[in-house]
Amino acid sequence: MTQTGSNDNRRLDRLDQRALEILFTEARTANTFADTPVTDAELTEIWELARWAPTSANTQPLRVLYLRQGDSRERLVKHMNEGNRAKTLSAPGVAVLARDTRFHEHIPAVLPYKPQLKDVFDADDTKRQDTATFNATLQAGYFILAVRARGLAAGPMGGFDAAGIDAEFFPGGRFRSILVVNIGHPGKDPWYARLPRLDHADVVRWA
Amino acid sequence: MTQTGSNDNRRLDRLDQRALEILFTEARTANTFADTPVTDAELTEIWELARWAPTSANTQPLRVLYLRQGDSRERLVKHMNEGNRAKTLSAPGVAVLARDTRFHEHIPAVLPYKPQLKDVFDADDTKRQDTATFNATLQAGYFILAVRARGLAAGPMGGFDAAGIDAEFFPGGRFRSILVVNIGHPGKDPWYARLPRLDHADVVRWA
Repeated sequence: MTQTGSNDNRRLDRLDQRALEILFTEARTANTFADTPVTDAELTEIWELARWAPTSANTQPLRVLYLRQGDSRERLVKHMNEGNRAKTLSAPGVAVLARDTRFHEHIPAVLPYKPQLKDVFDADDTKRQDTATFNATLQAGYFILAVRARGLAAGPMGGFDAAGIDAEFFPGGRFRSILVVNIGHPGKDPWYARLPRLDHADVVRWA
Repeated sequence: MTQTGSNDNRRLDRLDQRALEILFTEARTANTFADTPVTDAELTEIWELARWAPTSANTQPLRVLYLRQGDSRERLVKHMNEGNRAKTLSAPGVAVLARDTRFHEHIPAVLPYKPQLKDVFDADDTKRQDTATFNATLQAGYFILAVRARGLAAGPMGGFDAAGIDAEFFPGGRFRSILVVNIGHPGKDPWYARLPRLDHADVVRWA
C-alpha cells in the first residue's frame, strides 16, 4: 500500500532520486532508435500503468493504436511531416494516441454511481468534445511518462496531418488522433542538445 | 546519466515496482487532507520536476498559480462547484493550472534555433490557441504525476467556473485556467472506492 502510518495521519512515500531522473530530470525525447525490439507485452504494460492516473468523472477517453513495423507504419508516415518520417519508420514501437468522441457510452461501466451522466454528455456535444479533448490530452501526458517508467524512450510528435491519419486508421469518425509517440531504446546519437526551460518567475506565481 | 552501456547500444533504466505503485497503480485522488503543511519549497519542487517533460516545439505554455490558505483560497472556492469547496479550503496546497495564451513571446528564449516560430504563432491565432491548450494540458498530466513523485496526494478538479477564476486571478485575459489541483498529505478516510478502468479491448488496438 502507498500509505503508511495510522489511518488519521497517512504519509505517502516519495520517489527516490534515480526514479526522478528516469522520469523527469534526465529523460530525453529520442530521435533515433536501436534495433532492440519492443515487445507487445511491453507496449501493453505501458497502457496498464497509464490507465490508473485520474480523469474527470473517470471518463478515460484516450485510445491507443499500436502500429507494427511494415505496411501499417508506411501507411502512417505518409501523413506525417517529412522530418518525422525516418524516425517513425525506424522506431520499434509506435503509438497513435486518439480521443474517443463517444467515450460517454462507457460511463455506466466506469462511473457506476452516476450512470445518468452518459445522457448529459449525449445531449451536449460541445461539453462531450471538450471533455474528450481535455482528458485524452491529460492521459497522453501520463502515457509519455509511463513509457519512461518502463525503461523506454518516448518520441512524441505533433507534426502530422490528423485528418489524414483519422481517414487512414479510424474510418467512421469516432476516434480522432491527437499525438503520435515513437517508443524504443535509444539509438546512435539519440538526443539533441537540451533546450532551455522557462524560469520559475515566468511560470510560478503565488497569491 | 539515464543511459548505460556504449554509445550505440544504450539501455535506459526502468522504475522499480515501488515507484510504479507510487505514481500509478496504488496512487489515489485524495478527497481529505491532513493538517500537515506543504512548504513553498515542496510546491516549487513539483514544478521543477514537471517542467522537464516534453512539449511541442518546447513551447511550455503551462502556468502555475499557488494559492495560500486564507483570503486567496476563499476567493477561489466561490468559483468552484459546491462539492469541491470544503476540500479545497482544507488542502494545505492548491495550484490553479492555466495556459498562457501568449506563450509564443518566450519562443526566442526556449527555441533559440528557430526564433521565427514566434512570428508564425503571432500571425495565426487559432494555431496559437490550439498549441497552448494541447501542451498546457499535457503538462497538467505531468504536473499531477510530479505531485505524486514528491510523496504528496493530488486532487485534480475540473468542476469550477473558469471565467470566474480568470476574472478573479488573471485579469487582463492572458492566462486561462484549465485545472485546479489540491495538494497535501491524505487526511481521514481520504479515498473513495476505486472506480473501474476500461478493459484493454476497449482501449488498445493493433495494426
